[in-house]
Amino acid sequence: MSESLSVGVLGYRFMGRAHANALARLPMFFPEAPAVERSVLIGRDEEAVAEATDQLGFSEYSTDWEDVVGDVDVFYNLGPNNVHADPSIAALEAGTSVFCEKPLAHTLEDAERMRDAARDSDATAGIAFNYRFIPAIRYAKELIDSGELGEIHHVRGTYLQDWLVDPEAPWSWRNDEEVAGSGALGDLGAHTIDLARFLVGDRAGEIDRLSGHLKTFVDERPVPGGDEASLESGGGESTETREVTVDDAYTAQASFEEGAIATFEASRFANGRKNDHSIEIEGSKGSLKFSLERLNELEVLREGSRGYETVLVTDPDDPYIDHWWPPGHVIGWEHTFVHENYEFLSAVAEGEEHTPSFEDGYRVQELLDAIERSDSEGEWVDV
Amino acid sequence: MSESLSVGVLGYRFMGRAHANALARLPMFFPEAPAVERSVLIGRDEEAVAEATDQLGFSEYSTDWEDVVGDVDVFYNLGPNNVHADPSIAALEAGTSVFCEKPLAHTLEDAERMRDAARDSDATAGIAFNYRFIPAIRYAKELIDSGELGEIHHVRGTYLQDWLVDPEAPWSWRNDEEVAGSGALGDLGAHTIDLARFLVGDRAGEIDRLSGHLKTFVDERPVPGGDEASLESGGGESTETREVTVDDAYTAQASFEEGAIATFEASRFANGRKNDHSIEIEGSKGSLKFSLERLNELEVLREGSRGYETVLVTDPDDPYIDHWWPPGHVIGWEHTFVHENYEFLSAVAEGEEHTPSFEDGYRVQELLDAIERSDSEGEWVDV
Amino acid sequence: MSESLSVGVLGYRFMGRAHANALARLPMFFPEAPAVERSVLIGRDEEAVAEATDQLGFSEYSTDWEDVVGDVDVFYNLGPNNVHADPSIAALEAGTSVFCEKPLAHTLEDAERMRDAARDSDATAGIAFNYRFIPAIRYAKELIDSGELGEIHHVRGTYLQDWLVDPEAPWSWRNDEEVAGSGALGDLGAHTIDLARFLVGDRAGEIDRLSGHLKTFVDERPVPGGDEASLESGGGESTETREVTVDDAYTAQASFEEGAIATFEASRFANGRKNDHSIEIEGSKGSLKFSLERLNELEVLREGSRGYETVLVTDPDDPYIDHWWPPGHVIGWEHTFVHENYEFLSAVAEGEEHTPSFEDGYRVQELLDAIERSDSEGEWVDV
Amino acid sequence: MSESLSVGVLGYRFMGRAHANALARLPMFFPEAPAVERSVLIGRDEEAVAEATDQLGFSEYSTDWEDVVGDVDVFYNLGPNNVHADPSIAALEAGTSVFCEKPLAHTLEDAERMRDAARDSDATAGIAFNYRFIPAIRYAKELIDSGELGEIHHVRGTYLQDWLVDPEAPWSWRNDEEVAGSGALGDLGAHTIDLARFLVGDRAGEIDRLSGHLKTFVDERPVPGGDEASLESGGGESTETREVTVDDAYTAQASFEEGAIATFEASRFANGRKNDHSIEIEGSKGSLKFSLERLNELEVLREGSRGYETVLVTDPDDPYIDHWWPPGHVIGWEHTFVHENYEFLSAVAEGEEHTPSFEDGYRVQELLDAIERSDSEGEWVDV
Repeated sequence: MSESLSVGVLGYRFMGRAHANALARLPMFFPEAPAVERSVLIGRDEEAVAEATDQLGFSEYSTDWEDVVGDVDVFYNLGPNNVHADPSIAALEAGTSVFCEKPLAHTLEDAERMRDAARDSDATAGIAFNYRFIPAIRYAKELIDSGELGEIHHVRGTYLQDWLVDPEAPWSWRNDEEVAGSGALGDLGAHTIDLARFLVGDRAGEIDRLSGHLKTFVDERPVPGGDEASLESGGGESTETREVTVDDAYTAQASFEEGAIATFEASRFANGRKNDHSIEIEGSKGSLKFSLERLNELEVLREGSRGYETVLVTDPDDPYIDHWWPPGHVIGWEHTFVHENYEFLSAVAEGEEHTPSFEDGYRVQELLDAIERSDSEGEWVDV
Repeated sequence: MSESLSVGVLGYRFMGRAHANALARLPMFFPEAPAVERSVLIGRDEEAVAEATDQLGFSEYSTDWEDVVGDVDVFYNLGPNNVHADPSIAALEAGTSVFCEKPLAHTLEDAERMRDAARDSDATAGIAFNYRFIPAIRYAKELIDSGELGEIHHVRGTYLQDWLVDPEAPWSWRNDEEVAGSGALGDLGAHTIDLARFLVGDRAGEIDRLSGHLKTFVDERPVPGGDEASLESGGGESTETREVTVDDAYTAQASFEEGAIATFEASRFANGRKNDHSIEIEGSKGSLKFSLERLNELEVLREGSRGYETVLVTDPDDPYIDHWWPPGHVIGWEHTFVHENYEFLSAVAEGEEHTPSFEDGYRVQELLDAIERSDSEGEWVDV
Repeated sequence: MSESLSVGVLGYRFMGRAHANALARLPMFFPEAPAVERSVLIGRDEEAVAEATDQLGFSEYSTDWEDVVGDVDVFYNLGPNNVHADPSIAALEAGTSVFCEKPLAHTLEDAERMRDAARDSDATAGIAFNYRFIPAIRYAKELIDSGELGEIHHVRGTYLQDWLVDPEAPWSWRNDEEVAGSGALGDLGAHTIDLARFLVGDRAGEIDRLSGHLKTFVDERPVPGGDEASLESGGGESTETREVTVDDAYTAQASFEEGAIATFEASRFANGRKNDHSIEIEGSKGSLKFSLERLNELEVLREGSRGYETVLVTDPDDPYIDHWWPPGHVIGWEHTFVHENYEFLSAVAEGEEHTPSFEDGYRVQELLDAIERSDSEGEWVDV
Repeated sequence: MSESLSVGVLGYRFMGRAHANALARLPMFFPEAPAVERSVLIGRDEEAVAEATDQLGFSEYSTDWEDVVGDVDVFYNLGPNNVHADPSIAALEAGTSVFCEKPLAHTLEDAERMRDAARDSDATAGIAFNYRFIPAIRYAKELIDSGELGEIHHVRGTYLQDWLVDPEAPWSWRNDEEVAGSGALGDLGAHTIDLARFLVGDRAGEIDRLSGHLKTFVDERPVPGGDEASLESGGGESTETREVTVDDAYTAQASFEEGAIATFEASRFANGRKNDHSIEIEGSKGSLKFSLERLNELEVLREGSRGYETVLVTDPDDPYIDHWWPPGHVIGWEHTFVHENYEFLSAVAEGEEHTPSFEDGYRVQELLDAIERSDSEGEWVDV
């Protein structure tokens, strides 16, 4: 590991591009980051992965993760949720550091196995909750930790999208419980729950009790005839419609150990919202509001002030901003990946733990699981 | 009743002023409204009610509602929640029309008695859910009823205030379960639940199942020494602190008969929000957003459009606006009282029913009660 | 004058209603205001003025202002701009106080005569620049005067409406130079210039130099056939179209004595804006933003803060708010008239001067005139 | 030129990083772009340029542009405004394509020489007005060109920053007329004027007449003692303060050939604005609003709609977006450089002209010059 970290990446579509881009940008903007070699790109569809290898700047490709996980310094698991566990565990057991996309797994059992594997390994294991690395969110965290909001009373987290509101929108692996575990809950809710834990956890404690609700608005969706690529996974019989076995939306209400209360919600049916991950936090002294669609901004109510202040979190002493551009020259969604890759790879190079860890991923999974149990049992659930 | 409607009003503080002002403004702006005589103002504190009688333009005052309810054409019950039932029922039994502030009662039992009294009376009974009479809300209702939002998927209603966030804010009757029934739930949540029923009820059906959560952040509050006026009611022993026996905040999640899901929340601890009653509704074709702090505006997502349109609902053909000012000359919170008084008094004069009725008030009370039961039992409740 | 002030009002349409409403509301909300009797309503169209007299709560009407101005304590001149001078001067010469709508006159000469008449009279003369009486604007003024913005650098004032963007919108007296003097400039720009003077005058001095630009987008407009009422004035030959002899929009740039610079603009062609009177002020320590369409809000950048704070100017210690409702219960456009009538009538009752005075009206007129001269001469103009 | 375009870049600070990053990102996101070799980085300070060469991924460096401009396929001129002309002209004369930062030059004479050199050369010459390449701006352009706004009436362009509001902010070359030509006018106003020309030029024609105003609020500024780097240029005597010879702010009003009118303004003293480049356009059928601080959004008023629609311009068929991320995954300021480099380099590879051209740069310079002349002469200026 003396010269540069060799990286093997499973997944070459949306997340593959996001992480490959992040790796490519580190030398220019984070020169202190460890050197990284984009070594192997992994995917099952040889033609597609070969083409992506070229475009994303990898040295070679593989169609079998088992050939890779022991041969690289770092393994990125960006595959569908149901292939998170085995490759990640194999890598960790081989002493390879692992960066895994969220949610940690498609079942709580797999998440537990992954957490245990991370505990047992000397390698670094991280989960890619990228929204922790938005400058505005880190600035929010600093405000909360320094006590500027006082005692936390309310947390309100919603993640609203609308890409499934059309009942003719095609079926994909994200609609399949076998692959995804859950729908909006695991895909979007995982982000919200993690963000809530990250932001208020040190002041408000963990979520200790919750009540959840899952909803599927459209029960089956058309399947493009045998076109595997358009399904983004390799299922692919050519039936006409396929059952949606996950939630299109969830809601939850929760309490934190120190007395704060919360509501959470996510939907793929929120007509008019493209990627609106919002969190609002109210404390005894101040409050915060954030929306991902305006990710450079944080609304802050400070003690003694009369209203929310719209802060453009692009000043040189804001988190990560000194690496980028002058004040007001806004950054984008993809920059969160650069930041998290910088932090993760630095931890790997130093042989340290990374936060958020697999333990964090497991805790989120526990809460997602509790929401599902609460929904099926019609009762509040203690966590 | 041939000449003008004589009105007796119980309550002369906040709500008393709001309704007296509405009555006073009708002739100039709603000349087609029935003529009204502000006859009797009712209150227990003779000195205070006498002064208010003068300022609010009433002919005389009384310290006993029993002397009034049979002698006027219309009785306005604007007292604390626990004095809603008896005077209103007495009035209805005497054939006097009744306009009662919300929530209908401090207990479900009283609400039921009031609903039954209204059913049995030929007089008109209305509950003063004034937010139904905001032009932007009525415009929203028109959009929903005409199908412009399609099938309703999501309802999100919050009513956020911050006037109790200071633990030294004084105790008042609104913190007393005996008088108020509940706290943020009954005071604020009643508005939200009514608004949700009003807006989507005809498309989404009634709320049929819900899970609720109540929270009291500050358990006791200082009592100003024996100063009854500052308590806004006549309790008044001079103890140092008094127990808060109601909720400071509530959250709920719910489902509607036709499949929509909802979250609701209210708080008196939402630091930075003064009177932020917000409702968001997403349907299969379009969506809406509204906030009371910007009550002249409605955010509308229309079918085929790319984002929310900020509509200033002040055009001449918007509801009630032809009675007021040219486009863009915004109206205020108090105008909702003029509108609801116009509608209620017109119904009285015509001998017709008023909407929202005591039945509507009862339905809301049922839902508030279900939220409380769900909270205490830790279970979802069918309504 | 011992008992109540008798008031004669010329004009019974838009402004007549706005002021009559203000007078009617004073006793309930400003009990300390002098008592007022709505004595005589004045208009040329006897049938219309008779009907308005009834609806607006006046005791009698007159079709000739000359019969009235000497017989009342206060004369309100709400007529078209070209009838501001003579009746107001006659009233003042008779010792009757005068409240005149803006702009002060349709020509600078008339404005000068009016100012001189006010100087020579012991009666009180006021001009109805109502936007000075918005709570948010007065709060802004307090911030500026107390130095919270520091030295003023920038003023940016726009008044944008869109009611003439349709070329088929009918001709009215507001399009006629003979009656109105100017178009958007006098009707809207007068407000902006006055607001700028009011807000920054004590810090930045007077406007001492400016460059202006007037524009008429549509040169002639259809005239409804002989229907005088729809023209809101008594011209009324039944031609098919009539020439627009005023500006549809103006722009200006200006400098203040103490070094601040400004831009001003108004338009009746700003598609999408209904009544958007906005002012932005930037100083060495802080800044402000205001828009009339959200008149309860002020955006404030305070020294040391990182962004604009959205202040809902509805707290009990905000200007005038203690007369109205609790925090967050927003007021409307018409409340500005209540406030200005309260101030003006109090000045009358005390025999004091009112601000804004006819002198203020004259100063604004001078600046409007300078903008017109600059436009026609193509040069900057010193004032 | 058969294999890849060799690029020499003069300037390695802010703009150098922005363009180097853009070049580096093209292969992954715009695989159809011509291949580019970051060959030579040029700067006077050898130590600094050597370090930047490494970080920005160039093959070698040079301290003399004369050694480079004839040896590369493309020359990027990112130096201070007064070194735009000679190197660019030399390159063009050598047949090397040139991409030059804005404004085109520090004087109109130099701009004219550059335009002529571009005309006389077969190489491609482009000016880096990057804001033309914001997806929201290009979407706006499409709306205007397709007639959705109708006839253009109003243009309102402001570029507001606050980095000089502190009088102790250090002097830099941007405060020096010799180097920069002008201040806010050339640095920020050039962007606004170009954007206005780009957006409405095809509908409204060119600006044909204008009146301008320049203002310097702080006449001299401290100079960090002989520290050339902190001045970002090579002046560097160690005096204590140095005179500010450019404007801190400008305003202008203008008319377009087809009748639209406009106001323009820029400031480095607009407390609270970091990089707020805003443009508002109103037409007979629709209107637009844009702010750079929310560069993913466009506010659109469409014909027949009731208010501005907030469009998140991140859909797959929005300009350039198919190269990036799914809807709602916002891009940043730097992406504008990727887009403009893609377009410029594609033009170079095809041997075509690039828009915006040096001619466009010259036209903007003419208008900047006219603003300065108008300010000094106190008259409107025909262009």
